[in-house]
Amino acid sequence: MSLDTPSRKPHDRLAAALADDMGRVDELIRARMASRHAPRIPEVTAHLVEAGGKRLRPLLTLAAARLCGYSGDHHVRLAATVEFIHTATLLHDDVVDESGRRRGRPTANLLWDNKSSVLVGDYLFARAFQLMVETGSLRVLDILSDASAVIAEGEVLQLSAARDLATDEDTYFRIIRGKTAALFAAAAQSGAVIAGAPEEQVRALHAYGDALGISFQIVDDLLDYGGVAETTGKNVGDDFRERKLTLPVLKALAGADGAERDFWRRVIERGVQRDGDLEHALGLLARHGAQEATRDAALTWAQKARAALTGLPGSDLRGMLEDLADYVVARVN
Amino acid sequence: MSLDTPSRKPHDRLAAALADDMGRVDELIRARMASRHAPRIPEVTAHLVEAGGKRLRPLLTLAAARLCGYSGDHHVRLAATVEFIHTATLLHDDVVDESGRRRGRPTANLLWDNKSSVLVGDYLFARAFQLMVETGSLRVLDILSDASAVIAEGEVLQLSAARDLATDEDTYFRIIRGKTAALFAAAAQSGAVIAGAPEEQVRALHAYGDALGISFQIVDDLLDYGGVAETTGKNVGDDFRERKLTLPVLKALAGADGAERDFWRRVIERGVQRDGDLEHALGLLARHGAQEATRDAALTWAQKARAALTGLPGSDLRGMLEDLADYVVARVN
Repeated sequence: MSLDTPSRKPHDRLAAALADDMGRVDELIRARMASRHAPRIPEVTAHLVEAGGKRLRPLLTLAAARLCGYSGDHHVRLAATVEFIHTATLLHDDVVDESGRRRGRPTANLLWDNKSSVLVGDYLFARAFQLMVETGSLRVLDILSDASAVIAEGEVLQLSAARDLATDEDTYFRIIRGKTAALFAAAAQSGAVIAGAPEEQVRALHAYGDALGISFQIVDDLLDYGGVAETTGKNVGDDFRERKLTLPVLKALAGADGAERDFWRRVIERGVQRDGDLEHALGLLARHGAQEATRDAALTWAQKARAALTGLPGSDLRGMLEDLADYVVARVN
Repeated sequence: MSLDTPSRKPHDRLAAALADDMGRVDELIRARMASRHAPRIPEVTAHLVEAGGKRLRPLLTLAAARLCGYSGDHHVRLAATVEFIHTATLLHDDVVDESGRRRGRPTANLLWDNKSSVLVGDYLFARAFQLMVETGSLRVLDILSDASAVIAEGEVLQLSAARDLATDEDTYFRIIRGKTAALFAAAAQSGAVIAGAPEEQVRALHAYGDALGISFQIVDDLLDYGGVAETTGKNVGDDFRERKLTLPVLKALAGADGAERDFWRRVIERGVQRDGDLEHALGLLARHGAQEATRDAALTWAQKARAALTGLPGSDLRGMLEDLADYVVARVN
């Protein structure tokens, strides 16, 4: 298939359009994850980085900078920054979630230990800030240190709220805005900032990243109740087993009768799970149209993402970012 | 005892001299550890912060800034930054070490869980960078992001080298320079930088912090083989049980015969420990004069710290910092 075939996935078209920049990002990531004295650091990092994530966040930074007409070097540093912060949060998440698989491979905390995951995550986080300092932009440091605080806050909120049936959709959205959308938003916004774009473009790209990230996480949570493990690298039912109150469950809970509430209370709040419970949960989701309602929510946010770009200069890149929003939801269509 | 009694501990005299500044640091710490949506964050942080550490690192930042004639506000932000970074590393260390006690209290990972310790540490780290951004000094961000990377690197190095009898004193010093001295050095240096001090003063305060931190950590490692749990909040023998090759053991290993090496290999490398092993280890340390040799090393570094201040303007504060170096070692004299 040629590079220009319109039927190619938007993500692949974006990656192809930014292949040169992305090559430099990968080079920088490899250079900066090295550690002369502690070889465990590049080992653990490479395990995750080379498993080949979608590199969605650094692509957003690169695309935003280019879309705003940037021709310097710093967007490459920022894209590597964003990927380092993302990788650090993945390493820490796996410790927090006690996960066994990530991107279709055993997690670092299983292959090495929790200690390595915690400390290598810390190292990458520090490296991310070093890269930002090199851009000389205090505003970028401001944006990404704020985002880092919001990410951690979202994750902590998830710890305390995730298993509580009283959790409402507001809390759910606060959690996913923190744990996912904050970095998407900061990634796109900081690309515009480093390009010196006008404030309305900076705001537009922030809004785009925020809506895209929310849509992306809703879809992820939906896939956990019915996606295919091969395509996501996740195990279906992970969230159920980890007793996370995600949007599909909240939608099913909204219409639940007494017996159903008792079921959710047992499996999510009390964590007493038996054979067949996941299948029963899937049945309840179907009964209440929870998957459709969740997909509709994802679609609404994808449309918001697309709409956020309206004021930006029309270009191939803008078109790809617009299509990317649709594509994120197409994973469940 | 009056504030001016010379027999007061140097640390207390320093804290008294900087009491106003320190009060503002404490206020800022309380304000910034808050989280509207995730009350678990201030709970976990307060548990550690209010246990009353010595606040040595923020005192270094305040003292360095004042010593260099600073009269602004940013040293308060930097001191809070340094304390946040320190608290974040403590939270993560307790997960890494699987510790049960810290500052004489149960650790956060025991009272809550490892997840909270990891994520609240991440939050404080992000908050630290936000505070630095507020100072508007890219150089300070440079110094403290470098220090953060060196800290994590030292901790990872400790993971891989700690239980290997082939570890030499060079590696030991690299580890403690990372895990302890890097933040002492950055704390003192960044105080001088924010004060706009001449380069030789900036370098002198960095050298002071570095030497003081090394001395401090050597003493800590020595106390682990003979200190009193009440004064340190540590349990004697923690490092032995965690199989860390610290300086006292390295000194004893240097003169060990075959049977002794077999003993160390069993308890440290293989981790097979029985009743009476700690007492046997203490006997070997005594036999080889390991405690004295370790204390001599701490003393040498304390003298280096004192000497580093020679070029700085003479003042009460400088005298207190000089005395602090002696005092750090006096804990084992």
